[in-house]
Amino acid sequence: MTTVAAYAAPAAKAPLERTTIERREVGEHDVLIDIKFAGICHSDIHQVREGWGEAIFPMVPGHEIAGVVEAVGPGVTKFKAGDRVGVGCLVDSCRECENCEAGLEQHCLKGSVGTYNAVGYDGEPTYGGYAQKVVVAEDFTVRIPDGLALDVAAPLLCAGITTYSPLKHWGAAPGKKVAVIGLGGLGHMGVKIAHAMGAEVTVLSQSLRKKDDGLRLGADHYYATSDEKTFQHLAGSFDLILSTVSAPLDFGSYLGLLKTGGALVNVGAPEEPIALNLFSLIGGNKTLAGSMIGGIQETQEMLDFCAEHGLGAEIEVIAASEVNEAYERVLASDVRYRFVIDTATI
Amino acid sequence: MTTVAAYAAPAAKAPLERTTIERREVGEHDVLIDIKFAGICHSDIHQVREGWGEAIFPMVPGHEIAGVVEAVGPGVTKFKAGDRVGVGCLVDSCRECENCEAGLEQHCLKGSVGTYNAVGYDGEPTYGGYAQKVVVAEDFTVRIPDGLALDVAAPLLCAGITTYSPLKHWGAAPGKKVAVIGLGGLGHMGVKIAHAMGAEVTVLSQSLRKKDDGLRLGADHYYATSDEKTFQHLAGSFDLILSTVSAPLDFGSYLGLLKTGGALVNVGAPEEPIALNLFSLIGGNKTLAGSMIGGIQETQEMLDFCAEHGLGAEIEVIAASEVNEAYERVLASDVRYRFVIDTATI
Repeated sequence: MTTVAAYAAPAAKAPLERTTIERREVGEHDVLIDIKFAGICHSDIHQVREGWGEAIFPMVPGHEIAGVVEAVGPGVTKFKAGDRVGVGCLVDSCRECENCEAGLEQHCLKGSVGTYNAVGYDGEPTYGGYAQKVVVAEDFTVRIPDGLALDVAAPLLCAGITTYSPLKHWGAAPGKKVAVIGLGGLGHMGVKIAHAMGAEVTVLSQSLRKKDDGLRLGADHYYATSDEKTFQHLAGSFDLILSTVSAPLDFGSYLGLLKTGGALVNVGAPEEPIALNLFSLIGGNKTLAGSMIGGIQETQEMLDFCAEHGLGAEIEVIAASEVNEAYERVLASDVRYRFVIDTATI
Repeated sequence: MTTVAAYAAPAAKAPLERTTIERREVGEHDVLIDIKFAGICHSDIHQVREGWGEAIFPMVPGHEIAGVVEAVGPGVTKFKAGDRVGVGCLVDSCRECENCEAGLEQHCLKGSVGTYNAVGYDGEPTYGGYAQKVVVAEDFTVRIPDGLALDVAAPLLCAGITTYSPLKHWGAAPGKKVAVIGLGGLGHMGVKIAHAMGAEVTVLSQSLRKKDDGLRLGADHYYATSDEKTFQHLAGSFDLILSTVSAPLDFGSYLGLLKTGGALVNVGAPEEPIALNLFSLIGGNKTLAGSMIGGIQETQEMLDFCAEHGLGAEIEVIAASEVNEAYERVLASDVRYRFVIDTATI
């Protein structure tokens, strides 16, 4: 066991504070990672505040982890000390079910193990990336290519893969018109990635407040959804719409922006059920779909893609002591576009 | 103009009665069809009763038309007198928009023209298949292969294509598990076609009342959705679920029956909006989609497929004078599985 410093919420809704946690011994197939940066994902806040149900405390959030390998177990073949690596939302799965075999560990039929606020197959709670070090199985560790700085790479481990996976699956490519709803942590990566995939990208945001940013990040067009004319003007325009927001949208209106055969894919989701008239899907052979992060192999593919295209997250690096304030700013949408904790400050 | 006998509803919600209507002269590219059989689709009743909004009266319903070519215009190249032909839900479209070019005439961007309860590009109302004859553009006429009797072929023009198109698009094939919700006019064709496509087929019906029929039509399994154990037993089972019912379903429960990455496609739809928790799509990368009939080329493909596999509808042939009684029986789900009017009785 190794004692490491971390930032944790001692109880539901409590502010995070400095503490220490124990990391397990480095096992046969484990990698000990010296964490350098940890992104703050909106879902960290959901979980600390039990917005998604009862949680495990103390909680060390953080599933956007970038660091350097400090040591490896004797059975590790893919990594060595000094390698630049990342860890995302998952640290284990059964590795033998149909979904794990297919590289969809996030949908493991036995149940994947979250990087924090979860219980591992060993019965121990998991603690996330707001910490100095972490021990992770090599199969759930990915390589951060040399071309990507660790700070801007960290958010890719959740925000990057969450947008890359559905954009690829649903066919963002040259000749395709893709809209991204919301220009936040997820949305800004969606814009960058869809643009790099060659699609014509439109941002659909509540206001035009971030328009300059959106265009700079790769969007070709930018519309305010608070303006009703947007929905008339863009009717039937898109092959694919990626919704990154968790506000309750009028899905009928957004489905009306799709071309025949188009898909609206949700990666953010409102907590309450939505009302949907099925005729908005039938008229136009349309699709409403969901997508949850991505598997380990696809996460590596995403990192390689981002390195190749020079895509990192737009970040604001903070000290660990600023995390509680950062949470408030995330909730107020006052971040462009991801806070990243410099874990040297823990 | 030719005067032909027909069955029409003189006003909304009124019983259908014998009348006469005028058919246009056979134009350059038109086909005059001697109608032999016309299927009764549930949507005929919706439209007669203005369940889908204000309608045009008098109304001659019927968009499942099978007959024999009596005459053709001078420019017709695909058909000649004596050919066995069908007409489905559409009799015209702009023929030049992106969707028409792609063979998706049902989604014509200018607006396709329905076989009845519509106004043609010539400004005249259209009248459907409960009639002795009809004049239709050859481009909206399909060939009924010799292997298919005209009476069992008629319902394929709507019920057949409505199920064939999504089953094909969403990948019903050997090795795939497909469920069909509802064993009515659409559902029974869905079962036959999915089985012929090589999928393992399960019927999900309210009760086991039609189980013997379902298995005879090609289903491998049959479950009652009134039994809660069905949803536990079949959780995560299907690659594809085709919903053919318009009752409001608990979509969360049905999405739970899909495998990771699976799709639930609606061809029937409740009139009221459904409530949907988007997490039921996100957890499992699932899809909720809609599908509306099919284009002309795909309708021909479907007829050829059905002929090749010996698939006709299960029908009860009635005299035109029985149509009002048949409507009541359709509304009571008392038909196995499609009423077809013998138009010689008009």
